[in-house]
This record gives sequence, C-alpha cells and structure tokens, in this order.
Amino acid sequence: MASKPRVVVVGAGFGGLQVARKLAGKPVDVLLIDRDNYHLFTPLLYQVASSLLNPSDIAQPVRSIFHRGANVRFRKAEVTSVDFAGKTVSTADGAALAYDYLVLAPGSTTNYFGIESAAERAQGLKDLPEALGLRNHVLASLETATRTSPDEAEPWLTFVVAGGGPTGVEYAGALSELLRLVIPREYPELTRWRAKIVLVEGAPDVLPPFAAPLREAAKRELEKKGIEVRTGIRLTAFDGDRVTLADGSHIPAKTLIWAAGVRPADLAGAIDASRSRSGRVEVDGNLRIKGRDDVFVIGDAASFQQDGKEVPMLSAPAMQQGRLVAKNIVHLIDGEALEQFHYRDRGSMATIGKNSAVAEVWKIRLTGRLGWFAWLTVHLFYLVGFRNRLAVLAGWAWNYVHSDRPVRIITRAND
Amino acid sequence: MASKPRVVVVGAGFGGLQVARKLAGKPVDVLLIDRDNYHLFTPLLYQVASSLLNPSDIAQPVRSIFHRGANVRFRKAEVTSVDFAGKTVSTADGAALAYDYLVLAPGSTTNYFGIESAAERAQGLKDLPEALGLRNHVLASLETATRTSPDEAEPWLTFVVAGGGPTGVEYAGALSELLRLVIPREYPELTRWRAKIVLVEGAPDVLPPFAAPLREAAKRELEKKGIEVRTGIRLTAFDGDRVTLADGSHIPAKTLIWAAGVRPADLAGAIDASRSRSGRVEVDGNLRIKGRDDVFVIGDAASFQQDGKEVPMLSAPAMQQGRLVAKNIVHLIDGEALEQFHYRDRGSMATIGKNSAVAEVWKIRLTGRLGWFAWLTVHLFYLVGFRNRLAVLAGWAWNYVHSDRPVRIITRAND
Repeated sequence: MASKPRVVVVGAGFGGLQVARKLAGKPVDVLLIDRDNYHLFTPLLYQVASSLLNPSDIAQPVRSIFHRGANVRFRKAEVTSVDFAGKTVSTADGAALAYDYLVLAPGSTTNYFGIESAAERAQGLKDLPEALGLRNHVLASLETATRTSPDEAEPWLTFVVAGGGPTGVEYAGALSELLRLVIPREYPELTRWRAKIVLVEGAPDVLPPFAAPLREAAKRELEKKGIEVRTGIRLTAFDGDRVTLADGSHIPAKTLIWAAGVRPADLAGAIDASRSRSGRVEVDGNLRIKGRDDVFVIGDAASFQQDGKEVPMLSAPAMQQGRLVAKNIVHLIDGEALEQFHYRDRGSMATIGKNSAVAEVWKIRLTGRLGWFAWLTVHLFYLVGFRNRLAVLAGWAWNYVHSDRPVRIITRAND
Repeated sequence: MASKPRVVVVGAGFGGLQVARKLAGKPVDVLLIDRDNYHLFTPLLYQVASSLLNPSDIAQPVRSIFHRGANVRFRKAEVTSVDFAGKTVSTADGAALAYDYLVLAPGSTTNYFGIESAAERAQGLKDLPEALGLRNHVLASLETATRTSPDEAEPWLTFVVAGGGPTGVEYAGALSELLRLVIPREYPELTRWRAKIVLVEGAPDVLPPFAAPLREAAKRELEKKGIEVRTGIRLTAFDGDRVTLADGSHIPAKTLIWAAGVRPADLAGAIDASRSRSGRVEVDGNLRIKGRDDVFVIGDAASFQQDGKEVPMLSAPAMQQGRLVAKNIVHLIDGEALEQFHYRDRGSMATIGKNSAVAEVWKIRLTGRLGWFAWLTVHLFYLVGFRNRLAVLAGWAWNYVHSDRPVRIITRAND
C-alpha cells in the first residue's frame, strides 16, 4: 500500500485550523505546525489584556482539538524557511520536514509602520505574551501612580491607544471599564486624579470600514465612556514619557497601546514568491502561490484579489480559505478540477463595552444592547471548545452582574 | 486631633493578611506592603503547576480584599531593609516608609540546601512565576520528546520530584494525573514510551510529620498511581540531564522539581536580630523581636518556640500569629498587657489525587475519598474571595467529571 500524501500546514490560527479539521479523516497525513501549543482566539485578546478573561479561556491546546483525528499530528516549532524545490520546511529547532502539499497560514504580526520609537516602547496586542504584558503594564502603572508625587502621576494615568479599528476601539472601551471600576474602589490614593484614555486614529472616523451611522454611534459610545477620540491625526513618535502627534503636539503618557495595524508574519517575506504592496503573498484563484502546484497560502499572509481589492486580514476570510484549501487538496489527490475561492463577507462587528456594540450583519445594522448581544452570540459560537465557551460565558456573566474584572494580577516573568 | 498610629505590615501572605484584616476599622493606619499585587493561596500552587487551575484562581488582588477597610492602604514594593532606630522600612524603589508599629511577615523561599546545581537548574514550586515556569517546562518537555529520536526521549519523559512533604506528594500525584490523561490521548508519538515520575525523599517515609498509618497509606496511593517512591536517600546534584543520588546512582531526567524545603525570605537575614539555626528571627512570647517593643515577626520568618521546638512553617500558625499580633498592637496602643501566643495545631492534610488524600484533624485520621472531601472542604473554606472559591470549585468539578486538566498552554515570557 502506498503511503498517504503528506500535507504540512504551517500555523494553527483560524485558517490553518480549518485546513487540518477538514482534512481529518481524509486519505492524507496532516502535520500541523505552530510555534505555540495552542490555537488563540484573537478576537478576545483585548479581554485578557483588560483583566476580564484568563489566558486559557481563549487559548485551546492544539492537541486537545485533534486527539480524535488520527491522521492529524501536531508539532510545536517555528518555521523559518521553505525549500520549494526540495519540498521541505525548515524549523528553528533544526528539522527539515517533507511535504507533498504545503499550506502556509502564518498569520500576521504588529505593524509599527516604521515608527521605531513605538516599536521599541509601545505595548502590542496581537498575541498572548503581548496581551499579558499589556495587562501587567497597565496594572503596574496604576501602582506606580500611587507612589509618585501628585504632579508626576498624570502620565502614569494616561493611556494612549493608537488605532481606531476594532482592536483599538474594543480595548479602549474595556480599559475604560477597568479603570472606572477599580480606581474609585481600590485606589484611594488616586481619587483626586482622573485616568485618561486617548484614542488616536489617522482616518477621519473610528472603525473606518463600517457604515457612517455605525461609525458615529461608536464614537458617541466611546465618548460617553470618557474616552477622548482624536481622529484625522497620525501618531509620529513615543519616547516612553510622551506621545508625539503629527501636528507636533504631545500627550504626556507612559503607556501607548499599539493597535494601528498588522503586517504579514515574517515567514511571508522569507519565501520565494511575489508579494503585494502590503507584503502579502500573491495567490491565484485556487489560493496557490502563482506558478506552484502544491503550495497554498491563506489568511493574513495571502494576497487574494476580489472586486479589485485585497480580501481583508480578518478571521472570516481565513477560515473560508482554510475550508476551500482542504477541499482543493482532496481534489488534487483525486485528479479533479480545483475550486475557485470567493470571499463571502457576512459582516463585521465591534463591541465598545457592556451593552454596547456596533454590528453590520447581512446588511442589518445594529447598535447598543442589540448589537452587543449579536456580538456576544457570534463570538461564543466561534470559540473553539466547549469548556472555553463556558469559561468565557461565566466570565461575562460575572462581569455583567458584578461589574468586575477579576483577573487583576501582575505576573512576573519566569526567569 | 493627633494622627493615628501607623502600622506597617510587610508581606501579604497568610500572616500579614490576617494582621491587616483584623486591624481594619481599628484606630490605626495600616500600610500593607508586598512585592506582588496579590495574595497567593500557596496550598493550591501545585494545581496551577499541573494545569488544573488558572493563576488568577489562587491569586487575589490585595486591593480587592481591602477596598472596604478605609484605614488599610496597600503598596506594591519590595522591602529591602529596616532601620529600627529611625523606625522606617526601605523599599527597592527607593522609598523610606515610617512606622510606629512594624509587623514583618515576609514568608519563605525555596531552600536548595547549598546544592548549587539544583538551585540553578531545578524548577521551584514556591511562588506563581515558579508554578507557571514548571507548567511550561513540563508541557514543553512532552513536546520536545515528540521531536527527539526514540532513544533520546526517556529523560524528557522522566520527572524527578525532590521532597516527600505535602508539596512534593501533592504535585507528584497531580502530575501523574496530567500525564496519564494527556499522553495516551494527545501524544500518539509517545504511546510506546512510559512517562516516569520518581519521588525522592531523604527521610525513611513520605509525609514525615504524619502518623505511620497515614504515611503508609500515602505511599501506597502514590505507587498505585505509578509513581516510583524512593525514600531514605538524598539527592546530591542535577546537571540538567540527570539527577545524582547520594549512593552515586543516576536518574536520566531533564526535569527536577524541587519541593525539598523552604527557608525564611531574604529580609529575615537582612535585619538586625538574632536568628535560630533555621535562619528564622527569634521572637518572644508576644511575637516581638527580642528586646524590641514595636517590631513583630510572624509566619515562616519567625522562630517561635513551643514545647521545646519551633512552630512549623505552615499557613495555620502564620494566620493564628497574625490575628494575635493585631490584638497585641491594639493592646499596646491602649496601654494594656500583651497576650502570649500559643499555636493550636488543628491537624494537617495532603492530597494525592482525585478521591485520595490523607488527613489528620483533631486526632481523627482520614484516608481515601473521605480524606479527599475533608481536604477539599478545608481548602475551599480558606480560599480568599467568593469568586475564587467558585472558580476553583468549577475547576475541580470539571476535572472530576471529565478527568481533564484544561490549562495546558505553554506561555512565552513577555519580553
């Protein structure tokens, strides 16, 4: 009996996970590789960063997802390069792993757009270490503020969020709930001071891809929470003590949260392929690297053109692409024609806090409490693993009833 | 109106927390200092290290405990020295904090008994960073074992626990449940290998302070779980690849968990006071440093003699001492006679796993399932905070029903 074709999937994010899931039980051997041993539900990272959820609530061990799929193996490793001629991927631990079919789904990383001072000192919000680092930094800043002289406290209590996309808006809303909750109750030293959150967005509105009425609703909700929304201006530098804006003005702040954008993971730039202006790897209609029969690229690292523009870097297209690639690999093995990818945009949503979200689903626009319930339902539905859904729901229920954000511990690094 | 006497409490562990709680609402100003912003429920640390509980389940933010006690303030700082003459404590961030009464409750740290090679490479289990480091190390060892050649896998799958006290016994039992659960189900690469846990204890029995029948019951339970129990032999070195025992024999192992003992925190050695052979600060019958009217030492850092021996380094005496010191401070302020400390030993217990524990409470000895329920009840009762009790109970219920240890994520350090 001939051995089964070997499919290597790089990345256990939304796209890679779908490929592996849909190939479970099919006549292939799948090797799923990720540098972390968990799949991360990134849409809720900001809730870890803002002390509502535990890391494990949104991080599902990959092995626990696939233990029933006998033909899917997992390897914890960082892929550093691909040899298309030799049909192997190389990992940081020195292995060279052979493939018959390769799916690259390495995702994306924080994009500082060349602003070095921000890259060095800002807090990112793109993976679990960054989210925990941000949580620790914000809580430690409050502690530091209690120990400084009154005229030095202000920058420790000023939090600048760069980027008015969903991540920036959602984190700013959650941070304002955290600060409003804990400062009056637990920081009597700070009651004379008002913590300040400033959201800076270069575009004329927050949540640029949403319809105008939703953009305005989001801005109103943010301002109702006491967040200063500054749109139409870019951030140019951060020296650790103050943020500089494009008009030369400064905001004294010890914390800059960088939610201004993402770029494809380094692996996308390390392979021999043509890339779009955004650094994503150009793929054909079947999601293969142009000119290669056996290599697919999906998700944030792939540049797929539809209606004259790139499909956005979001979980929904990544998952749809993952499912299609699994089908196309089976087609290839069976000698059948491949299917073309078509992104179905089912809408987007962003939450600003308890009882407040904006959503655009199947042309229906929702705001306020209704938007919030829609948002909650969709996110719980997509969370991997029954236990995680329970834990997240319990966390929210607790927050809803008690207005509490319980995970307020400052962890030290393991050294 | 004269300002109220200022009580500085160093350490928010079991002892220090009791002092602050009992002084809440009394005519004093309390400043509670800890290097961490949380009170840690150390008896359940091994459950964090073995993937059952989240860090925040056993770590309660100090400020959330005292937000109703208007006369208790918190400061996150590391106390480095005390000036008894000037009546100030110095912190690592450069502050000098004045006190009228001082309570030192700095606790203890891992004691490697001068075995440098273990101090450098072993995993401790005494604070939260150590517990998370151990969890990461064990899970990463399993991942590494899947990537090595078959004849190199054994040391990655061998886990040596140094110390047969409650911490070593409880962790070994929990680790065996974790390994027995995940390896057959999630590590098909390792099914030909048997993970090995070796518990090494210098005394003739595990759990030395317990009665002989309980010591034997504990040993039987450990062996039933497949743990190799080696008593009456000391561990002398660990080079990262193998553990050396006093008879010159070796155990090839990449992991050594050090649960062999604790010593008073560094602060106990940094102050001008006489110390016992174990390094604990000698205190009088009122728990004051001998010859000092205004400085109390309690908990693991204090050497209190009763019935010709030192009261043990456990949470129960620390809490009893904390309550007495709070009373004695009020007595001092009121010009009343101080009370003498007397440790009431209500018993001890240790769990070996689901449905299995040994307990000695008010002369009653319990083993097996009954011991386990007693253990569970007591630990839930003493857990600070209603939410934590809920979270821990939920974790256990999940584990009990599903035999799962869900927090199996390998977190990277925040850098």
